[in-house]
Amino acid sequence: AFGSAQVRCAFAASRRISAEALKPLDTFPRRHISPTAEDQAAMAKTCGFDSVDALVDATVPPSIRLEKSLDLGKYTTGFAESEMLENFKAMASKNEVKRSFIGMGYYNTFTPTVILRNILENPGWYTQYTPYQAEIAQGRLESLLNYQTMVSDLTGLPMANASLLDEATAAAEAMGMCSNIVRGKRKKFFIASNCHPQTIAVCETRADGLGMEVVVGNPAEIDYSGKDYCGILLQYPGTDGAIEDYESVIKVAHDNNAKVVMATDLLALTMLTPPGELGADIAVGSAQRFGVPMGYGGPHAAFLATSFDYKRLMPGRIIGISVDSQGNPCLRMAMQTREQHIRRDKATSNICTAQALLANMAAMYGVYHGPEGLKSIAERTHGLAAVFAAGVEKLGAGKVGSAPFFDTVKVDCGPGKAVGIAKAAEAKGMNLRVLDANTITVAFDETTKLSDVDDLFAAFSGKAAPFTAESLAAAVDTTLPSNFVRQSKYLTHPIFNMYHSEHEMLRYLSKLQSKDLSLCHSMIALGSCTMKLNATSEMIPITWPELANIHPFAPVDQAKGYEEMFKDLATMLCEITGFDSVSLQPNAGAAGEYAGLMAIRAYHQVGLTSPGYIGADVCHLNLHKTFCIPHGGGGPGMGPIGVKKHLAPFLPSHPVIPTGGLPATASQNSFGVVSAAPWGSALILPISFMYIAMMGSKGLTEASKVAILNANYMASRLEKHYPILFRGKNGTCAHEFIIDLRNYKNTAGIEPEDVAKRLIDYGFHAPTMSWPVPGTLMVEPTESESKAELDRFCDAMIAIRQEIKFIEDKVYDKTNNMLKNAPHTAEMVISDSWDKKYARELGAFPLHWVKDAKFWPSTGRVDNVYGDRHLITTLQPAEAPVEKVA
Amino acid sequence: AFGSAQVRCAFAASRRISAEALKPLDTFPRRHISPTAEDQAAMAKTCGFDSVDALVDATVPPSIRLEKSLDLGKYTTGFAESEMLENFKAMASKNEVKRSFIGMGYYNTFTPTVILRNILENPGWYTQYTPYQAEIAQGRLESLLNYQTMVSDLTGLPMANASLLDEATAAAEAMGMCSNIVRGKRKKFFIASNCHPQTIAVCETRADGLGMEVVVGNPAEIDYSGKDYCGILLQYPGTDGAIEDYESVIKVAHDNNAKVVMATDLLALTMLTPPGELGADIAVGSAQRFGVPMGYGGPHAAFLATSFDYKRLMPGRIIGISVDSQGNPCLRMAMQTREQHIRRDKATSNICTAQALLANMAAMYGVYHGPEGLKSIAERTHGLAAVFAAGVEKLGAGKVGSAPFFDTVKVDCGPGKAVGIAKAAEAKGMNLRVLDANTITVAFDETTKLSDVDDLFAAFSGKAAPFTAESLAAAVDTTLPSNFVRQSKYLTHPIFNMYHSEHEMLRYLSKLQSKDLSLCHSMIALGSCTMKLNATSEMIPITWPELANIHPFAPVDQAKGYEEMFKDLATMLCEITGFDSVSLQPNAGAAGEYAGLMAIRAYHQVGLTSPGYIGADVCHLNLHKTFCIPHGGGGPGMGPIGVKKHLAPFLPSHPVIPTGGLPATASQNSFGVVSAAPWGSALILPISFMYIAMMGSKGLTEASKVAILNANYMASRLEKHYPILFRGKNGTCAHEFIIDLRNYKNTAGIEPEDVAKRLIDYGFHAPTMSWPVPGTLMVEPTESESKAELDRFCDAMIAIRQEIKFIEDKVYDKTNNMLKNAPHTAEMVISDSWDKKYARELGAFPLHWVKDAKFWPSTGRVDNVYGDRHLITTLQPAEAPVEKVA
Repeated sequence: AFGSAQVRCAFAASRRISAEALKPLDTFPRRHISPTAEDQAAMAKTCGFDSVDALVDATVPPSIRLEKSLDLGKYTTGFAESEMLENFKAMASKNEVKRSFIGMGYYNTFTPTVILRNILENPGWYTQYTPYQAEIAQGRLESLLNYQTMVSDLTGLPMANASLLDEATAAAEAMGMCSNIVRGKRKKFFIASNCHPQTIAVCETRADGLGMEVVVGNPAEIDYSGKDYCGILLQYPGTDGAIEDYESVIKVAHDNNAKVVMATDLLALTMLTPPGELGADIAVGSAQRFGVPMGYGGPHAAFLATSFDYKRLMPGRIIGISVDSQGNPCLRMAMQTREQHIRRDKATSNICTAQALLANMAAMYGVYHGPEGLKSIAERTHGLAAVFAAGVEKLGAGKVGSAPFFDTVKVDCGPGKAVGIAKAAEAKGMNLRVLDANTITVAFDETTKLSDVDDLFAAFSGKAAPFTAESLAAAVDTTLPSNFVRQSKYLTHPIFNMYHSEHEMLRYLSKLQSKDLSLCHSMIALGSCTMKLNATSEMIPITWPELANIHPFAPVDQAKGYEEMFKDLATMLCEITGFDSVSLQPNAGAAGEYAGLMAIRAYHQVGLTSPGYIGADVCHLNLHKTFCIPHGGGGPGMGPIGVKKHLAPFLPSHPVIPTGGLPATASQNSFGVVSAAPWGSALILPISFMYIAMMGSKGLTEASKVAILNANYMASRLEKHYPILFRGKNGTCAHEFIIDLRNYKNTAGIEPEDVAKRLIDYGFHAPTMSWPVPGTLMVEPTESESKAELDRFCDAMIAIRQEIKFIEDKVYDKTNNMLKNAPHTAEMVISDSWDKKYARELGAFPLHWVKDAKFWPSTGRVDNVYGDRHLITTLQPAEAPVEKVA
Repeated sequence: AFGSAQVRCAFAASRRISAEALKPLDTFPRRHISPTAEDQAAMAKTCGFDSVDALVDATVPPSIRLEKSLDLGKYTTGFAESEMLENFKAMASKNEVKRSFIGMGYYNTFTPTVILRNILENPGWYTQYTPYQAEIAQGRLESLLNYQTMVSDLTGLPMANASLLDEATAAAEAMGMCSNIVRGKRKKFFIASNCHPQTIAVCETRADGLGMEVVVGNPAEIDYSGKDYCGILLQYPGTDGAIEDYESVIKVAHDNNAKVVMATDLLALTMLTPPGELGADIAVGSAQRFGVPMGYGGPHAAFLATSFDYKRLMPGRIIGISVDSQGNPCLRMAMQTREQHIRRDKATSNICTAQALLANMAAMYGVYHGPEGLKSIAERTHGLAAVFAAGVEKLGAGKVGSAPFFDTVKVDCGPGKAVGIAKAAEAKGMNLRVLDANTITVAFDETTKLSDVDDLFAAFSGKAAPFTAESLAAAVDTTLPSNFVRQSKYLTHPIFNMYHSEHEMLRYLSKLQSKDLSLCHSMIALGSCTMKLNATSEMIPITWPELANIHPFAPVDQAKGYEEMFKDLATMLCEITGFDSVSLQPNAGAAGEYAGLMAIRAYHQVGLTSPGYIGADVCHLNLHKTFCIPHGGGGPGMGPIGVKKHLAPFLPSHPVIPTGGLPATASQNSFGVVSAAPWGSALILPISFMYIAMMGSKGLTEASKVAILNANYMASRLEKHYPILFRGKNGTCAHEFIIDLRNYKNTAGIEPEDVAKRLIDYGFHAPTMSWPVPGTLMVEPTESESKAELDRFCDAMIAIRQEIKFIEDKVYDKTNNMLKNAPHTAEMVISDSWDKKYARELGAFPLHWVKDAKFWPSTGRVDNVYGDRHLITTLQPAEAPVEKVA
């Protein structure tokens, strides 16, 4: 039992341990990069190379290879997971989380913990792709339809999209719509001066790009005589909290053929007459306060609602109801021809995208609270504001603005007193907004407590108040003027009224999750989308309160943790890209491309270069792709840009918190502002930061090599079965490759869509279809996929090729076959009236391993055309199901 | 658009808001209790009562109703969720988390974040029931089989169970086994004095109850002359870290017909010759350091491994391989007749149960690291210990014990110096163990860093060392004596070698999760098990580092947060139960019952009462049932006992950290120790604490009422279809009821098991079957289930009754029907060779709503008898699949 003497001797020799072996063992690259060393060697062989390095040498020309390894400063060697979580926690703790009363479109909110845990912290919800494959995305499609319905109900406008990036860019999109409505013939757009400053700034920058002119002022005094205003933007309630009566402003605008856009607040609209009923043409705003943390600026879901008249001009994604191959109602993205991924030049917008994950959170917040719950939160928030207003006047500490307010109280504190009071509040852990030297605004939200109001009394009066907010409450009149009081109902659909207990909510979330394929199930090999794994340790920090609960306009000295992270991240991004300065403001890839172009234009305007340099001077980084920010089912994203030194001064700044490129440049000459928040969606930057810091220099290089290896391995396996397009001179591809399906239309009547839908039966999401080449699939496996998973996918593709072969050979019917009928739902294959010309088992379990953990699509193939012809974009009454018109 | 003038007027009147409406709105009871007020009124009517209160009055006799509402002190009104999370965070922050080098069976560990998030923080894993319904539990059954295989491999013994409560009780169970092996004929059990003190204490208490005698001493000096030792317990490595050579001790024991139990450490066994190879008959220990937080004592999974010879004597649950109705291999709990839930009087143990959730975590830790990863962790831990040992001698700060060690170094510091050094270390944030006035032990683990060793050098020498641990490393000999060096392989099964990247691990976890029905899917109406929802806000604190990372033997003044929580919780439990003192030590219901009996016995022994009082003097509380600790798929549980004043002094204490009843009593006369840790599974007490504190007095009463209402509502709906047993004189039941299925055996050949398995086809877990009455189902819906969910379950039961009726009426075949063939897997109903005498759709989709989110069982009906006859309890090579012998 003790082993032989001989073996013992081998161990009896003295053995020493290296200091290296005593360093932490929970290193990250080996967890992130799935293929093992043995796998990699075997895969290189399959590709016809002796080693991975030989393959990479043949693929990436030496002329463009980095000669030295990346210098990532203290992150160069890469921190172990536990170490980096500890390091970053210490860094994040340098942020001071104070109670925010700043408002301006960002509010504290309670994320219901059932939503926090089961959506935001759940890879089943955050690793999904945009729901292009509707049959395996009915869960989030339903949630996004809930979002649209909620926005539509609350704004009083019949049609909403499935989210935009932020309130400011949503306003800019609305401005663009107003221009498009008149086909660009009116160049001016009016913005009321009581809009949020970041909204005005983003619209001004966007107008600059569009060749439009923004005029800011009092909307009662617009000069329409030039007939050149395409629209006006009002804020309701205003940035200072005032609820203005816009009845005549709207009427005059309409009389002058200008469209009316209202930036508004969803919580306020549970009490206030909605924009649609006031006559607004478009409503925009942020759903942030519906359960999405402030996160120092984002990501959050913005919204845009309008009339059906403008459905083809509406930017962003729209979820609509259609029918499937079985005649059952189902959901999918409607009218995609408007979107830039189809025809960039015809798109309604090239600078917008969606925030699906955050829209889902906001929608579920609405579902969980329901109409009465939301109204209670609004009334309580308003009540606290009213008690504060009454108290501050009673104390003689200020004069409250005369206009009615919802949650934000404007206080005239007396000449020059504002800053002093704000400082006193800050010392008590509260951030207020100083509007001007005499004026402060105080914004309340669902997290405010009565004791906070007492603290405010003390800050305003310089001493403890002789009364408490609680004692004052009963005497305070909370009435709003009757013309502002909402009369119409909202959120009447059963979905908003049946999931109010946690157990019901949990099951609803689980049910929707179970309908959606995500990275938890199988690889999503989307060319140009880099669906690599979003590691848990990367995700953990984003729900730390130190990062999640900071207002984007909090004094910067309260955000020292963020500051350090921005600096370290930007420095590393510069090293990785070879650029000199980075702007973290663009909160999506499209916004990054736009910001890059604007920076170049600004530079040209000052005459320092020739256009010949363009292209090498700027790059945008989709952090949500290469750097692990999860796709979230269609957002959030983050699109920082890196620029060469000469462009650095022109990078985006911000009207409230001045920013610029990082590392900071000596001079600044910013072209403008591209997102509502100074650092865009700051809360998701930690994900990329964690990724880079844990991978280190060697890990990142290794990731690139394995990404190339994985793609070449798949191409090598598949080239015996499908034509592979565009390989390099050595026969290799880079990190993605293209499968040509064009010929099967002729030989078997099979379209790329048939292959995509058939992949669902094998448990896979289709690769990118017909982009950039029509009739093809573009495959990008990424470094985080294992050889076993690549093999499963290749096996599926090879089996599908065999199915096509059988059609070509007339073994299978040309129209009634498993590709044309794909995907197969359980209901279809169990049906007692099976009329297909192949066995049920071939429909549902085409390969033996599919049985082990079958992912069932929840609808048959979706009819896109039907839904676009019968556009329905909100929840319908249960008694009126969608039925396919014959 | 603005509404009529008349309506406006109604709102123009001034309106005041009450202070009550300004209190936080995120109150908990309305989220926990699912039926709404409207539902409740309607349900009471269905039961034949005018109101819920009328129903409750008819059900609970006035004589036993509490006259006053519960006084829960500051928790009486119940805190809102956000408030209570904030309160408890502040309380938890009173704990000081220091680095622990205490050892003694508890070690710091890194929970891989992918396991943390996707098991411990995931309701899909923690809300499951014990896997009695194997067809919808294959995921956790596989994970538990992994656990058994891991324990079996590492201990070198062929058969392990699926976890026990803790190392100390596992040792006590092993002692009981040794006694049972000789049918109780030998009354003495020897324990080596270098076992952990808590292990000795628990065994002594248990021996006391069994009428056995424990002798503690040097195992080399056991006096076998009386032929009265049934077994001996050795610790390997010992509590002081020493690895003793037990070759002769074991031989002598066996020569004297005594069995050898070894308490051991799984991590050490990756390097050390395993107990099985040393000749041990039984190995026990804790799997805590495999990724389960210390949690101030628990819960963790313990293990027990032994020879197949003792399979019928082995305590606890055993997972085994069998075959299903389709002849496919599947898993289920084996040999259940040994277990107390079948025949309490014939059970192998009545005081043990499992820790499934923690066993799953430990198993996944093994799967994620694999054999090489575990060995690296062990070698690094050993290396750090060796460097420390070398350094402390080099410093002249102490003399290291001469025996070889794995992770724990014994240092003779010189006369009377131990306490001073420990204090110096504590001041630097490190907890050491003072073994005696001259001796300290220092235990290392995977979280120790080289810099920690430097800090230890400073603490031992009183100043910074002239060298660093890193500089010392290369010169340190880490060799173990050859006879202790493990030669045999372990964890060779592919499962331990293919999920080492995070992406592969995530998908493995997701796949297993998808096979298991949990509360995320549907109600689990288990009579006597109270499967109510475990709310997210209750669960959030348990992964706070302030609670999770404290060693159970840390100085109590470092655990002030826990102390406050224990006190508040115990006080509230006293108020709720009407008892005077509570012991939080029993870490399972069975342990609680046992502790209660032992306290009564101790009291009787001092002659203060008559047996007549028994029964009213003690109660045990299954916190994992009524008070929301999740079932975890079969543990953790927690079974505090409440006692009347006169029994309070006799409540359990602890040999390391003296404890007793709470609130503390003046005198103490404890009967002994029932769990390894002073406060049992301290880390899950926050769950019950949060529940009570958020429900408040009114919420708890309301919960009881709705639990009664829900049960009566279901009984009222079902009584028209099934006989309902044992209702009260007013025709009502309490919070559960019993459905009688006995007659259908005669009328239709249908057994309760057929109904249970058929419920799976409807998406439900069966209620408690044939307990306490054979041939029945006991249903307990709990207050957290909504009317809609109760209705779905009733609809399913009613539909099944109709199916039985059709068998009775000979419409359906008596043997080939949907009940006998249940459950129906997808593979069965899709099979091209469908030979059942009913439609496929009736098999899989018996009611229309089943289609919406069908939960598919992953195996057909499991053959229990086959598996018990061909017992296999570890993973088998893939090339040797289980096949049913004809």
